[in-house]
Amino acid sequence: MTYGVDDELTTFVLLKSVDVRVAKNGKKYLAIIFQDESGEISGKYWDASDEDIAQFVAGQVVQLHGKRETYQGSPQIKIYHLRLATDTEPNDPKLYVEHSPMKRDDMVNEISQTLFEITEPSWNRIIRFLLKEKQEAFFDFPAAKTNHHAFEGGLAYHTISILRLAHSVVKQYPALNGPLLYAGAILHDLGKTSELSGPVSTTYTNEGNLLGHISIVDGDIVRACVQLKIDPDDESVILLRHMVLSHHGELDYGSPVAPELMEAQVLHDLDEMDASIMMLSAALGKTEPGHFTERLFAMDGRRFFRPTRLPEQVPEKGQ
Amino acid sequence: MTYGVDDELTTFVLLKSVDVRVAKNGKKYLAIIFQDESGEISGKYWDASDEDIAQFVAGQVVQLHGKRETYQGSPQIKIYHLRLATDTEPNDPKLYVEHSPMKRDDMVNEISQTLFEITEPSWNRIIRFLLKEKQEAFFDFPAAKTNHHAFEGGLAYHTISILRLAHSVVKQYPALNGPLLYAGAILHDLGKTSELSGPVSTTYTNEGNLLGHISIVDGDIVRACVQLKIDPDDESVILLRHMVLSHHGELDYGSPVAPELMEAQVLHDLDEMDASIMMLSAALGKTEPGHFTERLFAMDGRRFFRPTRLPEQVPEKGQ
Amino acid sequence: MTYGVDDELTTFVLLKSVDVRVAKNGKKYLAIIFQDESGEISGKYWDASDEDIAQFVAGQVVQLHGKRETYQGSPQIKIYHLRLATDTEPNDPKLYVEHSPMKRDDMVNEISQTLFEITEPSWNRIIRFLLKEKQEAFFDFPAAKTNHHAFEGGLAYHTISILRLAHSVVKQYPALNGPLLYAGAILHDLGKTSELSGPVSTTYTNEGNLLGHISIVDGDIVRACVQLKIDPDDESVILLRHMVLSHHGELDYGSPVAPELMEAQVLHDLDEMDASIMMLSAALGKTEPGHFTERLFAMDGRRFFRPTRLPEQVPEKGQ
Amino acid sequence: MTYGVDDELTTFVLLKSVDVRVAKNGKKYLAIIFQDESGEISGKYWDASDEDIAQFVAGQVVQLHGKRETYQGSPQIKIYHLRLATDTEPNDPKLYVEHSPMKRDDMVNEISQTLFEITEPSWNRIIRFLLKEKQEAFFDFPAAKTNHHAFEGGLAYHTISILRLAHSVVKQYPALNGPLLYAGAILHDLGKTSELSGPVSTTYTNEGNLLGHISIVDGDIVRACVQLKIDPDDESVILLRHMVLSHHGELDYGSPVAPELMEAQVLHDLDEMDASIMMLSAALGKTEPGHFTERLFAMDGRRFFRPTRLPEQVPEKGQ
Amino acid sequence: MTYGVDDELTTFVLLKSVDVRVAKNGKKYLAIIFQDESGEISGKYWDASDEDIAQFVAGQVVQLHGKRETYQGSPQIKIYHLRLATDTEPNDPKLYVEHSPMKRDDMVNEISQTLFEITEPSWNRIIRFLLKEKQEAFFDFPAAKTNHHAFEGGLAYHTISILRLAHSVVKQYPALNGPLLYAGAILHDLGKTSELSGPVSTTYTNEGNLLGHISIVDGDIVRACVQLKIDPDDESVILLRHMVLSHHGELDYGSPVAPELMEAQVLHDLDEMDASIMMLSAALGKTEPGHFTERLFAMDGRRFFRPTRLPEQVPEKGQ
Amino acid sequence: MTYGVDDELTTFVLLKSVDVRVAKNGKKYLAIIFQDESGEISGKYWDASDEDIAQFVAGQVVQLHGKRETYQGSPQIKIYHLRLATDTEPNDPKLYVEHSPMKRDDMVNEISQTLFEITEPSWNRIIRFLLKEKQEAFFDFPAAKTNHHAFEGGLAYHTISILRLAHSVVKQYPALNGPLLYAGAILHDLGKTSELSGPVSTTYTNEGNLLGHISIVDGDIVRACVQLKIDPDDESVILLRHMVLSHHGELDYGSPVAPELMEAQVLHDLDEMDASIMMLSAALGKTEPGHFTERLFAMDGRRFFRPTRLPEQVPEKGQ
Repeated sequence: MTYGVDDELTTFVLLKSVDVRVAKNGKKYLAIIFQDESGEISGKYWDASDEDIAQFVAGQVVQLHGKRETYQGSPQIKIYHLRLATDTEPNDPKLYVEHSPMKRDDMVNEISQTLFEITEPSWNRIIRFLLKEKQEAFFDFPAAKTNHHAFEGGLAYHTISILRLAHSVVKQYPALNGPLLYAGAILHDLGKTSELSGPVSTTYTNEGNLLGHISIVDGDIVRACVQLKIDPDDESVILLRHMVLSHHGELDYGSPVAPELMEAQVLHDLDEMDASIMMLSAALGKTEPGHFTERLFAMDGRRFFRPTRLPEQVPEKGQ
Repeated sequence: MTYGVDDELTTFVLLKSVDVRVAKNGKKYLAIIFQDESGEISGKYWDASDEDIAQFVAGQVVQLHGKRETYQGSPQIKIYHLRLATDTEPNDPKLYVEHSPMKRDDMVNEISQTLFEITEPSWNRIIRFLLKEKQEAFFDFPAAKTNHHAFEGGLAYHTISILRLAHSVVKQYPALNGPLLYAGAILHDLGKTSELSGPVSTTYTNEGNLLGHISIVDGDIVRACVQLKIDPDDESVILLRHMVLSHHGELDYGSPVAPELMEAQVLHDLDEMDASIMMLSAALGKTEPGHFTERLFAMDGRRFFRPTRLPEQVPEKGQ
Repeated sequence: MTYGVDDELTTFVLLKSVDVRVAKNGKKYLAIIFQDESGEISGKYWDASDEDIAQFVAGQVVQLHGKRETYQGSPQIKIYHLRLATDTEPNDPKLYVEHSPMKRDDMVNEISQTLFEITEPSWNRIIRFLLKEKQEAFFDFPAAKTNHHAFEGGLAYHTISILRLAHSVVKQYPALNGPLLYAGAILHDLGKTSELSGPVSTTYTNEGNLLGHISIVDGDIVRACVQLKIDPDDESVILLRHMVLSHHGELDYGSPVAPELMEAQVLHDLDEMDASIMMLSAALGKTEPGHFTERLFAMDGRRFFRPTRLPEQVPEKGQ
Repeated sequence: MTYGVDDELTTFVLLKSVDVRVAKNGKKYLAIIFQDESGEISGKYWDASDEDIAQFVAGQVVQLHGKRETYQGSPQIKIYHLRLATDTEPNDPKLYVEHSPMKRDDMVNEISQTLFEITEPSWNRIIRFLLKEKQEAFFDFPAAKTNHHAFEGGLAYHTISILRLAHSVVKQYPALNGPLLYAGAILHDLGKTSELSGPVSTTYTNEGNLLGHISIVDGDIVRACVQLKIDPDDESVILLRHMVLSHHGELDYGSPVAPELMEAQVLHDLDEMDASIMMLSAALGKTEPGHFTERLFAMDGRRFFRPTRLPEQVPEKGQ
Repeated sequence: MTYGVDDELTTFVLLKSVDVRVAKNGKKYLAIIFQDESGEISGKYWDASDEDIAQFVAGQVVQLHGKRETYQGSPQIKIYHLRLATDTEPNDPKLYVEHSPMKRDDMVNEISQTLFEITEPSWNRIIRFLLKEKQEAFFDFPAAKTNHHAFEGGLAYHTISILRLAHSVVKQYPALNGPLLYAGAILHDLGKTSELSGPVSTTYTNEGNLLGHISIVDGDIVRACVQLKIDPDDESVILLRHMVLSHHGELDYGSPVAPELMEAQVLHDLDEMDASIMMLSAALGKTEPGHFTERLFAMDGRRFFRPTRLPEQVPEKGQ
Repeated sequence: MTYGVDDELTTFVLLKSVDVRVAKNGKKYLAIIFQDESGEISGKYWDASDEDIAQFVAGQVVQLHGKRETYQGSPQIKIYHLRLATDTEPNDPKLYVEHSPMKRDDMVNEISQTLFEITEPSWNRIIRFLLKEKQEAFFDFPAAKTNHHAFEGGLAYHTISILRLAHSVVKQYPALNGPLLYAGAILHDLGKTSELSGPVSTTYTNEGNLLGHISIVDGDIVRACVQLKIDPDDESVILLRHMVLSHHGELDYGSPVAPELMEAQVLHDLDEMDASIMMLSAALGKTEPGHFTERLFAMDGRRFFRPTRLPEQVPEKGQ
């Protein structure tokens, strides 16, 4: 919602969250966070009637008529009028959430291509089994509630980015086993389809809080083995489970075992690198040249600098 | 092997470990650790022939004729003669390893009793299924490679100690749910039957290193669900998995999630308390009154004091 | 104060804290926290006169006429009228603070019973001396300013809970010395009677901040020895001092020495376990089934889950 | 020196280190570590005369006649005879140290190629100035005293590996500035040419201990600016200095500032990844399938597993 | 601004910071922090016109007419009227910032005196070169943005305090080398003249954030060497660089190397001690006897106690 | 014992420690550490008879005839002959331990002088009471078992060094209260007279291990109060106890409370600074110019550099 200060606007937006509160004059009001593809903004809907409270709930699309203002350094909307979008209007919530820079079909294709490189039969079958089961969510869900790839399709897009880096690395270091690295990469965050609630208004599920996405997908691999009649005690299955169990890199970050396979260490490194590049690109994109970003908590609270001027890049060979 | 310095002895002992080395004179010798129920002692077998090397391997019972000496402050055996025990002699290795202070049958009985208190049908069925499958190992294995309950039957004995404490605690705090706590207690270390190699010359298996006993038993619960046709997404199953996943108390100690159920927190506390009491009783038992134990690495390297004199205890009420 | 939203109420309550502030219109108002046995609630008393400011001070009991509302997700009181309670009304502040689930006389009795089990004469005399001196406060004070057992009588109740657990543990592990463990348990938090200001509107005293309850009670033991003509260099006194000095378990948490007696380690473990069970029971009691508590800072910021459904418990044997 | 146990051998080797000691019989002997391209082995030269002590010093090439033995699990050489290599024999020490898998000329070429992509004039001039000055050492030195790339030419080879990874990453993430990343990569470890003593018998110099390679190269950049009349306060110079100052990623690891440029974060990530892959490939190369490596201290003391069997890799596209 | 609550006042003050915000009634207002030599106070300027916004910017001196009030426990100003100070009024911002307790000329003199004790020619020349270059800022700048010596001239004053302590310590421990310690003391924080923006409204510069004052002054030493034709590889230069590089004492606090010279360790200790004494004196000066200060974040969040009564001091010998 | 390698020597030395061991030939030998004022050296006494074992025990003075050799880089003594020193020979063990660089009488005097500056009556009386009681040990004991001031009289000497620094600091910062700082300095380590066993062959006592010197002296202050009829609850006593309780600076290092008085913070800083200067002077004294010391574990394992050349110092003013 890139309007200037004091711009008036009439537009369709998603109600991302709605809080009912009581004002000092004793009347109720709604504290709302609006969302469209470009980002979020908050506003207060004063003197809310019981009917207003009933209809303006999170997840609805509304037509908003208001003015963009600044309160304590942050933008907010002064609301003039609000009504629900009708069925003849663009009222599908998915239209208003950020989404992956890559089309869904292209992502499906690229993942499918990689499956052919997973030449260990048990890994291949387990992955096909679980991807089929969770296909809908895998290509819909974000990769995280906040921070990195927190957009629709972010989970698949993050997986594909890692797979691309993985191919470069395997090419450069022949000691690395490609099939093991790719298999781990595809499965590593698949448990997020159960850990998170979905692409819109994402929260953690109870299962997600109590088990975590690492143990969820680890359990899924065991379940797949039983259903596919693969021996879960075979070394190949244990290697695959180790890849997903260890991908957070340290016990401290929730992996029950630290990487003990070279490919597990590399998977962890690529996972971290892709997540930080995405987070930093996004944060720097919102920062003026010559200035620092806000503190980024997922990067130890560091602030990053956007240089005033950077040199031209020589075109990549072969492009 | 509680002989005094310079005592000569002729006795049957287990070869706990045997290392072939080359002496400065170019001849081979065996560096041996002997074990009997009372503990361990090392010794060197000089000028070992190829035949000696072939027959004196770890896990064999031998008749040892030698003298107890002290080398750099530690006891060791000067070996006069060594031969394999014959079938008419006590040559079962299990005779020479420490074992649980409780008889196996009594342990089986006490665990069986507790099963009746686990009134949640899915927990009860999962536990019976897994206990049946791993029964042999569960009552044979130690609870750890070193440190606490590192003796035959130690795993079951540690489980029973926790269950007894758990009953006292449930009685004192009615807010605690007994069935959940008992179910978690029985399963929490069951994965050690795959993580460790067995009761004699215990090491970690490859599976144990790569997955850890926490994820092993977590996967077993999922497997049991599929085989017993219990829905693995039911809250009751998730609660049970959380109990075992979180029992190390902190991510740092290898739990992928920290306790988020009151019963999970209590299970962790009881697990730690039983382990330290066992370790400390053993260490203090080897220490003279008025002195400190060696540094105990599992207790942050602390040394513990055995008081010179402690007061008589009033007999417990009802005893 | 378990009223529904928008309920009107007229009731006697304690002024737990009162802050004088200036509103945007330049007039003064009082920001008040009210307390009764069921909990706390805040409210604003607008346009406060100098007389109001003089009479409505923390520690007074008042009659409150108002309405329960919600502001930014938290309940608060809209005050219609406020006046001091008179002497013919229930104006004793102690009526309005939470208190121990056990009656004072029963607590006095249970502690007295335990004294007979402390068979070491010097410990017995030191404890009787200090308990007599601090008796009033010991049975009145909370065990902490916030977090656990933060209610009148909480200190004695926490001590009794630990003593009960201690008896169970001594019964299960004969290597533990009961008298030492019980003596340490009774004294471990007795210094809180000087560290904290009292049962109502509890704060830390200057002495409490500068010395801490651990060194306070340690000094008290030394003082008792001199006054009772017990040799403070006797091993029995040193053991008792070690029990209280080490009960926080680690230097990091304020113990100048970590536990080096088995009984000191157990005292620390029981202290922690009782504190967390009390804190978790309270937090879960305020949480709906199927939801998580708020973050609990004394539990590393974790949130705990209240299961939707838990199985029935089989009655304890012998009950 | 891949001989079997008990093999006799006559060969030329480098004296890597020589220690003069006194034996129990009062005579002197030399404790020697021999090195050739395949690795290291130790041996004792008994009854050393003053002449022996004078001639057999570290850095000399000798002809060794002896037998390979095992002492306490480690291989060692029993020395029959030792003499200095003559000028007609292969007596250049460099023949006996491990070296880079890439030829020096190829490394020079690849670095030169990359210079054309550094399109910022000040960076380009600074790098050419410093590379020219330190060219000899840059292509000779190891990248570390032990651990990773600890071989002749290792510094340049490590730099080239990072540059290759950097090109892949820049290609995948267009938000990254190639020239900045490449410039940082070339300079990041260049200070090691002053921090370390050289390719043979590598130790830390006093300057290396007192300043560290990070501040050494940072000072070199400033010096280059003065000598090339580049304004050291220009933002471009500050960016370049930040790249080298922050490349250890955290203050804890010796960077005076943590990365605050996206390219600095990526340089750090690539540096770590290349170092671990090299270390792990080497360690796994010495390990039997189905076993774990020794503990690797540079990897938090973890041991890594070499799988028994790994699947075939599909040939990379375009190969 | 030591007025009592409700005092009216008309006075000249500096606008330390000014924030434009929108009130609930939709009008703009200015959230201002005023500063004079005695400290700071905040206030709100309601209904700000565009002209007000244009003229009342940070760094201006204004005449303030208002009343001192208390809001949520903190003092603030209710603004009646505000206008810019004219040229005939005291409108130099430097008049309103806190400044060093020592006159600038006295500080210049004391530093000059010390230079004669730096008997190593290269150190002496480097220091004179850099002090000359940065003289203006060195005697103007604060030693930090907040916390300690955050006043005009604070940097030079902090340096002088350390030099005085250094003289006492050198006198007491003859093993310490005075010239090295004094040289390090003078240079250690000189980089702050580039790291900070200046004495008024101090912020960090981009260069300060990206390099830090430690590497800035380290680079300055190298630059001075080149310009003065001193060999930067001479041990004396390396010692001097080590003194400034290591003065934060630990890698964690931003030193790329920890102290490895006795004088470097002492410089770090004196730096810390002077900083804490200044911070604590200031905080205790604002605290009533018998009370604790606020939490001091630079002292690990500790609060310090101001005793009710302290004994008279015997006059120092020789005073 | 500063002899060159291979020097023969006949001299009186103290047996610092004696270990009875069994050699490979089955005979007993003594592993001895000899000590004289200049340091320590080890040696082996082969073929020890029962009589030898009985007479050559730690704490005896002997006449040693032997030769200085080097074994694995460390000096050791080859023993030719050993006999006990007779009463007509210098056989007082105290002659052979390192001692304070200051005479005992001078130390007694300097401490006495300072007592006149402690103008708070209760502090003055408590200190005189405790110093009188522990006078003998206070001027005899080392300040630590190893590391710093580990010589006879080291405790008093360390105390005096801190007092001298304290006077300089009080002179420079008038906000510091001298009497409080001096009182804390005198008492801070006095508990070491109970924590350590004495000046020769120093070990920790059981009391020292179980209570620590901090709580020991804290208890002593309380005891002194009771015996001197000083009210232990007076603020002045609490301040004094806080000074000693907090002097380790952080909970982690064994202080039950961190410094909350400015003087307590300064006492901690001076304590650390004096300890490190003493330790570093000693370590550098044993190091050649241009080289580094061994790793010093009390300094985080750092090695310190002894510069090749340091500039002359200008004589201190007034000297």
